[in-house]
Amino acid sequence: MADSRFFSNAGPFSLARIAEAAKAQSMHSEDASRSFSDVMPIDLAGPEDVSFLDNRKYADKFKVSRAGACIIAPEMVDHAPVGMCLLITPQPYHAYARVASLFYPARQSTGTISPSAVIASDAKIGSHVEIGPGVVIGSRVEIADGCTIAANTVIGDGVCIASNTRIGVNACIANAIIGAETIIHAGVCIGQDGFGFAMGPAGHIKVPQLGRVIIGTNVEIGANTTIDRGTGPDTCIGDGTKIDNLVQIGHNVQIGKNCVIVSQVGISGSTELGDFVILAGQVGIAGHLKIASGTKIAAQSGVMRDISPAQEMGGSPAKPIRVWLKEVAMIERMLKKKGS
Amino acid sequence: MADSRFFSNAGPFSLARIAEAAKAQSMHSEDASRSFSDVMPIDLAGPEDVSFLDNRKYADKFKVSRAGACIIAPEMVDHAPVGMCLLITPQPYHAYARVASLFYPARQSTGTISPSAVIASDAKIGSHVEIGPGVVIGSRVEIADGCTIAANTVIGDGVCIASNTRIGVNACIANAIIGAETIIHAGVCIGQDGFGFAMGPAGHIKVPQLGRVIIGTNVEIGANTTIDRGTGPDTCIGDGTKIDNLVQIGHNVQIGKNCVIVSQVGISGSTELGDFVILAGQVGIAGHLKIASGTKIAAQSGVMRDISPAQEMGGSPAKPIRVWLKEVAMIERMLKKKGS
Amino acid sequence: MADSRFFSNAGPFSLARIAEAAKAQSMHSEDASRSFSDVMPIDLAGPEDVSFLDNRKYADKFKVSRAGACIIAPEMVDHAPVGMCLLITPQPYHAYARVASLFYPARQSTGTISPSAVIASDAKIGSHVEIGPGVVIGSRVEIADGCTIAANTVIGDGVCIASNTRIGVNACIANAIIGAETIIHAGVCIGQDGFGFAMGPAGHIKVPQLGRVIIGTNVEIGANTTIDRGTGPDTCIGDGTKIDNLVQIGHNVQIGKNCVIVSQVGISGSTELGDFVILAGQVGIAGHLKIASGTKIAAQSGVMRDISPAQEMGGSPAKPIRVWLKEVAMIERMLKKKGS
Repeated sequence: MADSRFFSNAGPFSLARIAEAAKAQSMHSEDASRSFSDVMPIDLAGPEDVSFLDNRKYADKFKVSRAGACIIAPEMVDHAPVGMCLLITPQPYHAYARVASLFYPARQSTGTISPSAVIASDAKIGSHVEIGPGVVIGSRVEIADGCTIAANTVIGDGVCIASNTRIGVNACIANAIIGAETIIHAGVCIGQDGFGFAMGPAGHIKVPQLGRVIIGTNVEIGANTTIDRGTGPDTCIGDGTKIDNLVQIGHNVQIGKNCVIVSQVGISGSTELGDFVILAGQVGIAGHLKIASGTKIAAQSGVMRDISPAQEMGGSPAKPIRVWLKEVAMIERMLKKKGS
Repeated sequence: MADSRFFSNAGPFSLARIAEAAKAQSMHSEDASRSFSDVMPIDLAGPEDVSFLDNRKYADKFKVSRAGACIIAPEMVDHAPVGMCLLITPQPYHAYARVASLFYPARQSTGTISPSAVIASDAKIGSHVEIGPGVVIGSRVEIADGCTIAANTVIGDGVCIASNTRIGVNACIANAIIGAETIIHAGVCIGQDGFGFAMGPAGHIKVPQLGRVIIGTNVEIGANTTIDRGTGPDTCIGDGTKIDNLVQIGHNVQIGKNCVIVSQVGISGSTELGDFVILAGQVGIAGHLKIASGTKIAAQSGVMRDISPAQEMGGSPAKPIRVWLKEVAMIERMLKKKGS
Repeated sequence: MADSRFFSNAGPFSLARIAEAAKAQSMHSEDASRSFSDVMPIDLAGPEDVSFLDNRKYADKFKVSRAGACIIAPEMVDHAPVGMCLLITPQPYHAYARVASLFYPARQSTGTISPSAVIASDAKIGSHVEIGPGVVIGSRVEIADGCTIAANTVIGDGVCIASNTRIGVNACIANAIIGAETIIHAGVCIGQDGFGFAMGPAGHIKVPQLGRVIIGTNVEIGANTTIDRGTGPDTCIGDGTKIDNLVQIGHNVQIGKNCVIVSQVGISGSTELGDFVILAGQVGIAGHLKIASGTKIAAQSGVMRDISPAQEMGGSPAKPIRVWLKEVAMIERMLKKKGS
C-alpha cells in the first residue's frame, strides 16, 4: 500500500507476532506461523495482507474480501470468507493502529548530530539523540535520550525535553518543559510572549510574560500551531492530549489529559479544559472559562460561558447541541411558512 | 509604480509587444512602435504608462485618464480620451495580468546552489535549479529543471518536484509529489501526519498515516498553510488550484482543478471538492463530504452536508445563500417588530 | 516567581527606583530606600515583593496580602494592610507593566553576528545588531542599530528595518519597510504575494503584486501570522498596533494606530481600519470595507459592511452587539415557548 519512497515496511511478520501486536486473539491456532507482508483496506487487501473491519457499513466488502487476515469484532466471525485468518478483539480499529505501527514503525532517532547544527557548549544532549542540519540549541538546554530535533528547528535557552520526543522541521521551542514520547510537528511555535498589554488611550504597554509552557507525555502538536507561554502562571498541556494544525493556545491555558483539539481551534487566555475534552475544527473559546472533562464542542462553535457538567455543545454562542439544532430547524420552518 | 528596491521593471516595451502579451488588439496600427515604461492604475497613469479599465465604476476616471495606453473592452472605445492608445479585449483584467507580468516577470531561478545547503548525495537535482542557504534536501529527492528552493526550506526523503516550481523560505515538504510551475510560499507545511487516532477512554492510539500529498501543475499555496498527507489513500490538490494563507487541508482530501480557497479555510479529512469550487475566508467543511464542481461558499460558512448540484451557500450550518440571507433578514424584522 | 532558567531578574531595586519606573507616588517617603527583589501576584507576594491591585474583585486578597509593596489606586489606600509600602497611581496595571519590565527587561541585542549567518555583501548592518545562526540577509537590506534577527530568519532583498526592532526565529520578511521598536515573533511571514488572480473558466491568471508592506513603530506581530504585500498600493500597519498569532492580513489592508487584533482574525484585501480598533479572536472582515476608529468587534463575528460611526459589533453577519444579543435571546425564548 504505502509508497516505498516514503515509508519502509518492517514486515513480513507471522500471524502470531501480528496478533501479539494487535492484542487480539487468533481464531485458529494453526494459522500462527502464516506470514503477512503489509496492511491494507478491506477492499484492496490480498492474501498476503492484514486488514480490519471496524465500521459495519463495510460489512459487505468484508464478506467478499480477499484479505489473508482480518482484525474483527467477535460478532463478525460468522460473516468471514472461508480461509481468512481472523484476529478477534472488541476494538478492531485500535488493534489495526497497533498492527500498522508494527509494519510501519514511527521513525526513530538515527543518533546522528549534523555538523551544521549550532549547539551551546553547556547544553546537555542525551544518548542516541538526532539533531538535524541548521538546528540551533541554546544555553543550558537539556535533551534526553532518543529525541529527534529535525532540521532548522530552534530550541531556546533553558528548554528541557524528555526522552524519545520528536520535534519537526522549522519549529521554535522556547521557555518550555516538554515531556517524553511527545510529537511536535513542523512550524510549531511554543513559548513566545502571550498577548498581554495594559491597554489605554495613549497606547498599549507590553506586560512581561513571566511564565512557561509545560507539555506532558505522549502529546502531539500539529504543524504551525502556536502555544503562548504563561503570564506568570504556566500554560499547560496534559498527557496524551492531541492537538491538530494551526491551533492557537493562549497564555495560562490549562488543558487536561487526553483532549482532542482539531485544526484552527483558538483557546483564549486562562481558560481551563478538563480531561477528554473534544473541540472540533475552528471552535473558539473565550478567556477565563472552565470546560468540564468529557465536554464535546461542535465545529465553529463559539464558547462564551463555563461548561459544566460535560455535554455536547454547538453554535455561536455555544449552547447544548440539541437546543442549537432545534433552533436551526425552527428558523428554517419559520422561513418556509412565511414563504407559503 | 513599483518600488525598485523590491521589483525590477523589464520594460520599456513597444505597444506591439504589449498587445501581443495582452492577447489584445491595438486599435490603431500606427501606434505599434510607441514605447511604454510601466503599468499603472487608471488615475495615476501618465503618457508612458499602460493602464486598464475592467470595472465600470472607474469609467469616469477612464474618461479623464492621462494614461498613454489602456486595455479596455470593446464597448468602452467611444469613451476614451483623445490620443490614448487603446488595446481591445473582452477580458481587460486578464490582459492586464499578462501585461503586468511582462513588465514584472516572476522571479526565475538563478541556478545557483548555496554552499550552506545540505543536499543528500543521492538526490537528483536538475539543471538551472536554485537552492538557497540552509536548505536541507533529503535522500532520493528529485528536483526538476528550473526549480527554486528558498532559504532554510527542508525537503524530506523521496519528495519529487517537477520543473519550474518555486518553494519559499522556511517551508517543509515531506511525503509529497509536486507538479510543475507551482508556487509554494513561505512557512508551508506539506506531508506531515494527518490527525488520525483510535480514540478511547484509555487514551488515543496514533494510526500510522501511510499516504502521500499529490499536488498538480500551476498550483499556488499560501504562506503557513498546512496540508496533511493521506492515511493510505493520498491527499490531492488538482491543477490550477489556488490556496491562500493559513489554510488547513486534512488527510485524504481531494481538491479538483482550478479551485480557489481563501485564507483560514479548514477542510476536514476525506472531503472531496470538484473543479472550480470557491471557498471564501474562514469556511469550514466537515469530513467525508462531496462538494460539486462550481460550488461557491460564502465566508465563515460551516458545511455539514454534501453539496450537489453546484450552488452558492452561506451560513453555519451552510444552506443555499438566498435562504440564509432571508433567514437573517427575517430574524432582524422579528426583533424590530417586538421592539415596536 | 519567574523560572530562572528562562528569565533573569535585574533586581533588587529600591522603592524609589520602582516608584519612578511605575510613574507612581510612594505613600510614605521614608520607604524610599527599602529594597524589593521581585514582582508577584497579590496572593503569592511576600515582604520582598512588589505586587499590584487593579481588579476590585481581588480586594479581599489585598487586605490580607503579605506583599512588601503594592501598586494601588488612591481609593484603596484605606484598605491596605499595616506596614505595606504603597505606590499610588490611577492606573495600577499600567504601572505594574512598567515595574515588571524593570525587573524583567525585554531581551536586548547581544550585538553578536553568527558566523553561520549568510549576509549579502551590500547589506548595511547598524551597530550592536544581533544576527543569529542560519539567518539569511539579502542584497541591499538595511538593518538599523540595536536590532535582533533571531536564528534561521530570512530577510529578503531590499528590506529596511529601523532601530531596536526584534525579529523572532524562522520568520520571513520580504518586500517590507519595518519601523523601530517593533517585535515580530517566530514564524511570521511578511511580504509574500497577495492572493490576486484574474479568474476565469480557463483557469486563474496570477496578477503581479507590486506593492510593499509598511509596518510602523512599536508594533507587535504574533507567531505564524501572515501579512501579504500590496497589489500596487501598500499593505500598512500603523504605529502601536498589536497583532496576535495566526492572523491573516490581506493585500492593501490599511490598519491604523494602536489597534488590537486577536488571534486567528482574517482581514480581506483593501479593507481599512481606523485607530484603536479592537478585533477579538477569529473575526473575519470582508474586503474593501472601512471600519471606523474605536470600533470593537466580538469574537467570531463576520463583518460584511462598513462600520461607521464606531460601535461594538457582534454576530455573523455582524450587527450592533446589543441587537445581536437580543436576537440570540429572542430565538432562545421562541424555542422554549414552542417546547412548552
